[in-house]
Amino acid sequence: MAKKTEDITLVIGHTFPDHTLHHFPEMNLERIYMDYNATTPMEPKVIEAVSEALQDAWGNPSSNHIAGAMAKAIINQSRQSVAKMVGGKAEDIIFTSGGTEANNLVLHTAVEHFRKISRSAEQGEGHQNGCSGLPHIITTNVEHDSIKITAQHLEMEGKADVTFVPVSKVTARVEVDDIVAAVRPNTCLITVMTANNETGVIMPVQEICQRIKSLNKQRERLKILTHTDAAQALGKIPVDVQELGVDYLTIVGHKFYAPRVGALYANGPGKRTPIYPLLFGGGQERDFRAGTENTPMIAGLGKAAELVTSNLSEYQSHMQSIKLYLEERLTGVFQDKVRFNSHYPGSDTLPNTCNVSIMGPALQGWRVLSNCRRLLASVGAACHSDRVNRPSHILLSSGIPTEVAANAIRLSVGRGTTKADVDAVVEDLRETVQLLEEMN
Amino acid sequence: MAKKTEDITLVIGHTFPDHTLHHFPEMNLERIYMDYNATTPMEPKVIEAVSEALQDAWGNPSSNHIAGAMAKAIINQSRQSVAKMVGGKAEDIIFTSGGTEANNLVLHTAVEHFRKISRSAEQGEGHQNGCSGLPHIITTNVEHDSIKITAQHLEMEGKADVTFVPVSKVTARVEVDDIVAAVRPNTCLITVMTANNETGVIMPVQEICQRIKSLNKQRERLKILTHTDAAQALGKIPVDVQELGVDYLTIVGHKFYAPRVGALYANGPGKRTPIYPLLFGGGQERDFRAGTENTPMIAGLGKAAELVTSNLSEYQSHMQSIKLYLEERLTGVFQDKVRFNSHYPGSDTLPNTCNVSIMGPALQGWRVLSNCRRLLASVGAACHSDRVNRPSHILLSSGIPTEVAANAIRLSVGRGTTKADVDAVVEDLRETVQLLEEMN
Repeated sequence: MAKKTEDITLVIGHTFPDHTLHHFPEMNLERIYMDYNATTPMEPKVIEAVSEALQDAWGNPSSNHIAGAMAKAIINQSRQSVAKMVGGKAEDIIFTSGGTEANNLVLHTAVEHFRKISRSAEQGEGHQNGCSGLPHIITTNVEHDSIKITAQHLEMEGKADVTFVPVSKVTARVEVDDIVAAVRPNTCLITVMTANNETGVIMPVQEICQRIKSLNKQRERLKILTHTDAAQALGKIPVDVQELGVDYLTIVGHKFYAPRVGALYANGPGKRTPIYPLLFGGGQERDFRAGTENTPMIAGLGKAAELVTSNLSEYQSHMQSIKLYLEERLTGVFQDKVRFNSHYPGSDTLPNTCNVSIMGPALQGWRVLSNCRRLLASVGAACHSDRVNRPSHILLSSGIPTEVAANAIRLSVGRGTTKADVDAVVEDLRETVQLLEEMN
Repeated sequence: MAKKTEDITLVIGHTFPDHTLHHFPEMNLERIYMDYNATTPMEPKVIEAVSEALQDAWGNPSSNHIAGAMAKAIINQSRQSVAKMVGGKAEDIIFTSGGTEANNLVLHTAVEHFRKISRSAEQGEGHQNGCSGLPHIITTNVEHDSIKITAQHLEMEGKADVTFVPVSKVTARVEVDDIVAAVRPNTCLITVMTANNETGVIMPVQEICQRIKSLNKQRERLKILTHTDAAQALGKIPVDVQELGVDYLTIVGHKFYAPRVGALYANGPGKRTPIYPLLFGGGQERDFRAGTENTPMIAGLGKAAELVTSNLSEYQSHMQSIKLYLEERLTGVFQDKVRFNSHYPGSDTLPNTCNVSIMGPALQGWRVLSNCRRLLASVGAACHSDRVNRPSHILLSSGIPTEVAANAIRLSVGRGTTKADVDAVVEDLRETVQLLEEMN
């Protein structure tokens, strides 16, 4: 059974309290949230950390007095916790306003770094070792918009060339060889997400970084930088910057029960790995990212990171078992009408993401969802919610046929999702599908 | 008397609770915070709004389901409240991660706008009406680092020319004629803070905008855009975009008892007034500022704006009377040793900012403050806290002699500061000065 309203005095769960639903129909029914890839609530312990920081550390972290020192101490503690979660050092963590900013910072840095190397090559010995012309960025065709649109913008502005390597239509993964084949003399950055937000497919980031490391040994001036957007992976699967071998990794708080702030991991920022700031000002974050630090939110990010470090395997196995149960129940109820868009031969996937189509002419994903009485889910990335009645380009790129993609529903479960929730959701879907089929 | 510890279960005041002071000496003495220009605590009603949004609206505002709709509704409500506070329309408000981002966005926009006009002039009729060469930005020599350093960076990168118009050494204000005299054919932006953070001096933004409006009538292609960073003015004096006549205005939550987020007012963004985004991604903030919205913080910003709209005159007169009392008491105790660095002939100043020097060879501002047992204040902007033993360049620029500037202490009072707090602080200063003079 879903949690009762009175259980939700803190943001602990996957339901929404009744008193907030007064503008909406069906207010007497509790909703069940299965859209954890869009965002998560904060964990109670995270809320506690946020509240404590609000109370005790509201001073400006740059102030020289005790009020500043308390804030500074909390931020440093958080920096350590976030670093530990991804296997990096505290000094490798740059706090940002979120994942979008972190991703933009990486692309901006790569382009500026190329410009700097180009200039020094021009002023230097005359030979240019592949640093004239435009910088070249390699990414995939299934990245989040904060990579995709940023890269497209750089192209449009004539600031960079970009190759969007298509993922395999069989495995839904980008193939390592395809990435390597796309490398040019001017390639300055390869950015590949750790796991996809719609299919849940885990990308071969480690293998890509290994291959690029070898390539870099042969490149004199312009080393290729590697980045992964780990937004969907953190808190769901192990993520370790050493193992992956990346130069940069994007951390997005609100995907792992932390507040809406983020961070960028950079391997020795300003030393081993360049950072060219996007924002200038009061020198915060060692001049990599100016702006008075959002202490309470950063405190929450640190606490959420600690929870991931301590409990990841538990979270992972819980979500995995709930997802398997969900898939079983869906198959049980809808039989051969079910297509899973999160199953690809040979590809590992996130433990929490079940992308499913229930086949039938009136069963488009958006139509099913908007008729569900309890289920809260989406047809794909939240940022595409204005285009719900077009099949997801991510699924089409992953080889899902148009008529299947049109009916896709992304069900992403969370740490607190129960089998009872699954039963309720499957029943809701059964009723909805029956209704829509009768109406058709 | 300062508030008792048990009063501080919410972040309501200007003292820090004892239990947080255990790392620090003098833990049995309550500190009195007079550094409200550095940052403010959140008002209890703001904390309430943040907490409610955390509970009821943690969904992704871009999600199509009820969880998203609830978040979206809160953000829209906040947008209206923030707009109302500054006399703008809801659609004029773009939420940002803070003031630094808002200021950076304005400078970035001005430069990109110039580039776009240059290009269309090149491609167009051939005559260029002052749009070849570099864009030119006019600002003052007493701006916050998020303007100053950003402008210097643009200069250093060869992306813009910048004129830092010096403020008058008599009035500490930038003179309207000096700004107008600095205008060149390529001038694309004038950015002048509403009020200075150290001297409290209010700048003649309205008069500047009026003069620029006349100038713009004679300019065919390149209109000069006007911006003011209202960080220190909001919540202290009336701020109205219509009266000021600015194209852009920066709003910084944590200076008016709101959370650490901000907003940029732009007069009809993307229509009457250009915006060139710094961050690309999921299309949030109508594509002007991508990134999943920080719903709870934005909710708090809206509530804090409502409080300002409702209570500004009360806040203003309270702070003014406390500041006057503080000045009286300082003069009474320190007599002819007192110099006020926030008094300038003919200049209006913020109601809460008392910048004072107590003259004497061992009484440098940082030395006095680090020996005070109760007072929490600063010698200037928090972002300069690593340079406390150098006299503030802001004060020097404002005509304060070096030996006076070296002893400066910025006391900025808040909504909750009482006369008893003032008495305690003045007594603290008296004891400290006596001690330092004896030690000398």
